[in-house]
Amino acid sequence: MKKLVGTSVVGASGYSGAELLRFLLRHRGARIDRLFANASAGKTLADLYPDFRGRLEKTFEPYSLEAALESDCVFLALPSGEAMTIAPKLIERGKTVIDLGGDFRLRDVAQYEKFYKRKHAAPNLLPLAVYGLAEWNAEKIKSAKLVANPGCYPTSALLPLLPLLKERLIEPTNIVIVAMSGVSGAGRKADIDLSFAEVSDSVKAYRVGEHQHLPEIKQTLEDLTGQKVSLSFVPHLIPTTRGIYATIHATLAQGATSEKIFAAFERYYREKPFVRYLRDRIPELKGVLRLNFCDIGFRTFDETNQLILCSAIDNLVKGAAGQAVQNFNLIFGFDETESLP
Amino acid sequence: MKKLVGTSVVGASGYSGAELLRFLLRHRGARIDRLFANASAGKTLADLYPDFRGRLEKTFEPYSLEAALESDCVFLALPSGEAMTIAPKLIERGKTVIDLGGDFRLRDVAQYEKFYKRKHAAPNLLPLAVYGLAEWNAEKIKSAKLVANPGCYPTSALLPLLPLLKERLIEPTNIVIVAMSGVSGAGRKADIDLSFAEVSDSVKAYRVGEHQHLPEIKQTLEDLTGQKVSLSFVPHLIPTTRGIYATIHATLAQGATSEKIFAAFERYYREKPFVRYLRDRIPELKGVLRLNFCDIGFRTFDETNQLILCSAIDNLVKGAAGQAVQNFNLIFGFDETESLP
Amino acid sequence: MKKLVGTSVVGASGYSGAELLRFLLRHRGARIDRLFANASAGKTLADLYPDFRGRLEKTFEPYSLEAALESDCVFLALPSGEAMTIAPKLIERGKTVIDLGGDFRLRDVAQYEKFYKRKHAAPNLLPLAVYGLAEWNAEKIKSAKLVANPGCYPTSALLPLLPLLKERLIEPTNIVIVAMSGVSGAGRKADIDLSFAEVSDSVKAYRVGEHQHLPEIKQTLEDLTGQKVSLSFVPHLIPTTRGIYATIHATLAQGATSEKIFAAFERYYREKPFVRYLRDRIPELKGVLRLNFCDIGFRTFDETNQLILCSAIDNLVKGAAGQAVQNFNLIFGFDETESLP
Amino acid sequence: MKKLVGTSVVGASGYSGAELLRFLLRHRGARIDRLFANASAGKTLADLYPDFRGRLEKTFEPYSLEAALESDCVFLALPSGEAMTIAPKLIERGKTVIDLGGDFRLRDVAQYEKFYKRKHAAPNLLPLAVYGLAEWNAEKIKSAKLVANPGCYPTSALLPLLPLLKERLIEPTNIVIVAMSGVSGAGRKADIDLSFAEVSDSVKAYRVGEHQHLPEIKQTLEDLTGQKVSLSFVPHLIPTTRGIYATIHATLAQGATSEKIFAAFERYYREKPFVRYLRDRIPELKGVLRLNFCDIGFRTFDETNQLILCSAIDNLVKGAAGQAVQNFNLIFGFDETESLP
Repeated sequence: MKKLVGTSVVGASGYSGAELLRFLLRHRGARIDRLFANASAGKTLADLYPDFRGRLEKTFEPYSLEAALESDCVFLALPSGEAMTIAPKLIERGKTVIDLGGDFRLRDVAQYEKFYKRKHAAPNLLPLAVYGLAEWNAEKIKSAKLVANPGCYPTSALLPLLPLLKERLIEPTNIVIVAMSGVSGAGRKADIDLSFAEVSDSVKAYRVGEHQHLPEIKQTLEDLTGQKVSLSFVPHLIPTTRGIYATIHATLAQGATSEKIFAAFERYYREKPFVRYLRDRIPELKGVLRLNFCDIGFRTFDETNQLILCSAIDNLVKGAAGQAVQNFNLIFGFDETESLP
Repeated sequence: MKKLVGTSVVGASGYSGAELLRFLLRHRGARIDRLFANASAGKTLADLYPDFRGRLEKTFEPYSLEAALESDCVFLALPSGEAMTIAPKLIERGKTVIDLGGDFRLRDVAQYEKFYKRKHAAPNLLPLAVYGLAEWNAEKIKSAKLVANPGCYPTSALLPLLPLLKERLIEPTNIVIVAMSGVSGAGRKADIDLSFAEVSDSVKAYRVGEHQHLPEIKQTLEDLTGQKVSLSFVPHLIPTTRGIYATIHATLAQGATSEKIFAAFERYYREKPFVRYLRDRIPELKGVLRLNFCDIGFRTFDETNQLILCSAIDNLVKGAAGQAVQNFNLIFGFDETESLP
Repeated sequence: MKKLVGTSVVGASGYSGAELLRFLLRHRGARIDRLFANASAGKTLADLYPDFRGRLEKTFEPYSLEAALESDCVFLALPSGEAMTIAPKLIERGKTVIDLGGDFRLRDVAQYEKFYKRKHAAPNLLPLAVYGLAEWNAEKIKSAKLVANPGCYPTSALLPLLPLLKERLIEPTNIVIVAMSGVSGAGRKADIDLSFAEVSDSVKAYRVGEHQHLPEIKQTLEDLTGQKVSLSFVPHLIPTTRGIYATIHATLAQGATSEKIFAAFERYYREKPFVRYLRDRIPELKGVLRLNFCDIGFRTFDETNQLILCSAIDNLVKGAAGQAVQNFNLIFGFDETESLP
Repeated sequence: MKKLVGTSVVGASGYSGAELLRFLLRHRGARIDRLFANASAGKTLADLYPDFRGRLEKTFEPYSLEAALESDCVFLALPSGEAMTIAPKLIERGKTVIDLGGDFRLRDVAQYEKFYKRKHAAPNLLPLAVYGLAEWNAEKIKSAKLVANPGCYPTSALLPLLPLLKERLIEPTNIVIVAMSGVSGAGRKADIDLSFAEVSDSVKAYRVGEHQHLPEIKQTLEDLTGQKVSLSFVPHLIPTTRGIYATIHATLAQGATSEKIFAAFERYYREKPFVRYLRDRIPELKGVLRLNFCDIGFRTFDETNQLILCSAIDNLVKGAAGQAVQNFNLIFGFDETESLP
């Protein structure tokens, strides 16, 4: 086996950061160097995540560029708005940066500023960033210095939609994405709205029509299929910790059939280890928890020309840390599935 | 106060039946006579629902027509398929029947047999049945002998859609209803798929495009608005016990605006005690739990001509027992809100 | 009916405060005047608790003595440490104060300062405070100006233990109380440890041997039975929102039998509307949720001379707001059960 | 690496059976032959547990001795009462049997029949069975033909208690074990009492003083420490899927100190990979989920001579499948940690 690739995680105390460490810990080609987490500096990883006790005994430290430079690859698992202040210097010094946040996903600064409601601090890096949807962008990812790891909702919507749009089996307009997410998607933070007493026994739609993942989905569909797309996206918070479940309505294109849809999935995903498409079976969220899979199922309705797609991912794995490791594997020449369950 | 109306509940051991008893217990005009529940016969209500201990000490008994005839009004809270064998004799003997199940909701026997997958045992009663959507059918309900209490999903979809279709503010085609339900909607039964270990931490869409509430929604929208309607309905099971949350997409009709939509809700619901429509606020499921409210919120999107409606009800209350009591109140001349929180 | 008693709630935005408002709202002898909540001032009650929408439309305001003086009775539903700064002036001005927090429960200032880890700001009020365990202290409560409403854990432990200690049916030493609480017991606050992702799927014991409810239980057992008591108390946080379940081990005194134990419960609680003691049946938490009951069950083991008691309450009702209303009813001459389900 | 050991699982459709397959799937020395599950015969593993889709595509089949004889080691993951009818013929034919159920744990047939409420079908095998508590019985396990894998509750109680009793740091009498379990402990079955609507938002103690794990704990403590032990054990069902949390009270022996207790844990467990004992820290259930660890924490109270121990395990891992694999590893000469996270 080749020599170990040094890795550090900035924002290691969050849910995505900790999940990333769970994968890196069993990665046969990675070495874990530093855990940066300003607010938890001085605490151990096991203080926050007791499952690590005896398995990875490390202490969080405040971020320092110098320390980060020890590693070959730096993962940024930060709230949006922070990565763009840290990434430039790392890139400049030749490091590979995989950003799990949203700072480098939108090519258009104006869109970023509209949906993220802040100025972009490193717009010059945007042209450099490669969108890390591994099943569709593998070649570009392999030589990337800065990977914008896809958002969790976008991953759950893009993987089922892309083959069908690409093959012109659905209309590019009037796509309706209704998605449900567990609370870990909001990150590890003190917030009454995320408390057990508030979340449990409830459901709510939020940021209806203005969620920052909406332009990300639109941009990627358009970029990768060359069509102008119009869609609606309504995320919901449901009482569970992990996972995203998306139910998508689209209009079948002339001549599209159930068989052709299945064939499209076969064409694009037969060789892909992490997409499981099902015939005659609607996925369940529990089938993907703690795994790097995206499960896809669908049904067509001829009378109304409608297609209903359902997809499921673990937001912290395929929707964040697992996909980040998949990108890491592509960049550093490991098997795409290394360390991923 | 007038003399007490005698009531009995058939299927009193189920979740809807027990919920009904919670309301009847504090109803100032109702007397609780008999609790029928074949499978739980001999057990007490408190054996199954310990909250009743010391408040309503009654024992379940097997159904008997004779015993049921003691009451003025018989509530049927049975799995679909059973009410249609029990209702005819009660009606014949002059009793008022309020059926919380699906047997008398579809006017068209063929539709019933297609979606419920069984023959209808009492098709001659169908013309007699009044659909018990209290906010829309109050006059007919007042003189009904057989009320078909609406399904839980239909209630959550009909209340937001009816005023808008009626006022031609949305197109009658391409309506997309995505709804999430707690597990109590499936009834109280031994079923691995409803077990805590299976439901918790998961989500799944089910009966995609073939749920028996689909024709009920369609029929009622068409009956009450006189338009031909096409819609999609995808129900989901989420890890919670009570409640339904529906997110509905519709296309705005020419000239429809946010103001007009709000005005439509005002027109139809201002005087209605159990519909709360919100301006600039998306409802949360927890706001309606154990209450007889339907909460409605919405947003319009001019660029795409789209309307997004969200609604929330407690499936056991406004979606079952509460609405049944509302109908009971209408029929027997009580205040519509009597005993309803 | 007598003229309405004016009430205000300080700390009305917390879970106990809101629960109190749910009871006061249907209390036929109470008027709700002011909702004080500094941190939520300006928000409406329905903003935080959407179930109140259309039922109690009030806005939180910062606490002001002047405004509070409008009411006859002021409920304090504050984190410990705050009531003792507010109560003195209210008492001075002749108001009745019912404190749901811990500031006035311990008679011994040193104990307070040890377990609550702060100085007591109003030690002179301690002799005035009446411990509001309604089933045991009703006479004193009726003429109290300051009621120290019992803690949630103490209520769950005291109600089963008091009759048995009083009747010398168990030894006063070596009592072991292991209790589990839902997260609402910790109050409504932004705290990572209370977040859904942390609480769900986990359990932990906390403040083992040093919880502030330990001296409260000990003091009350000793005060009301005249015996020196030694006990252990271990609270646990479990993944649920409401409720306390306590499993208590005690040593049977010479001659104690299952019959005598049941007789003791009968003697003290037969006439009490809110204690349900069960023979041959272990209580379940769900039997008391949203109700003001304390359910008690037990088993004796002759070989080991052991008694196992299990008790269940809703921490926000019998363990807080419900018991507060019970005390309010005693003081103002209402039926003890008024407004309590 | 040595040649693969063939394994089959009887009762492969249950939660413990499926968990076992998750470990065997990544075991570098095991081959998975047959999945026996009478009630699910004909279904695939992925039908019941969608996480296996694409990872282990096998179909359940009815149990047949012939088919089972293909394997070197047969795991029995059956409801109690079934293993004792299957094990004898397998043992006779020279197979190694690891039974995850309770049929071979109690040496005394009378105790078995009292607590399991049925006759024992293979009492002659009892002397042969080795109790599979790997940390304490490794030598005997290595040469066992029939391993009685410990119960989940017993594992959580025995690991903290054994070193202390062995070192005479606690009294052997008056030990009080209060434990909480997730619902998966009851197995995968259609049972109203295990349904989401019943379990969620509730807690209850059950089989107080008569649970079949009580004699198992007592027997093992006595066998391994040579002392007569008296104890109480009260299990509780809490609203979570996995895990056991035990809070244990014991009386400190003369001269016992916190240091000596910690030293005892060090003596017995320093070299053991799956026991993590903590100083000054109470374990949390989430720290052991999906892991094979038993976490132990404790506090001593000098005034009352009391020791409070808290322990946490995943009932399906260290309390069932993980410990079974640990035993498998010991018997077949693999590293004790092979395939265990």
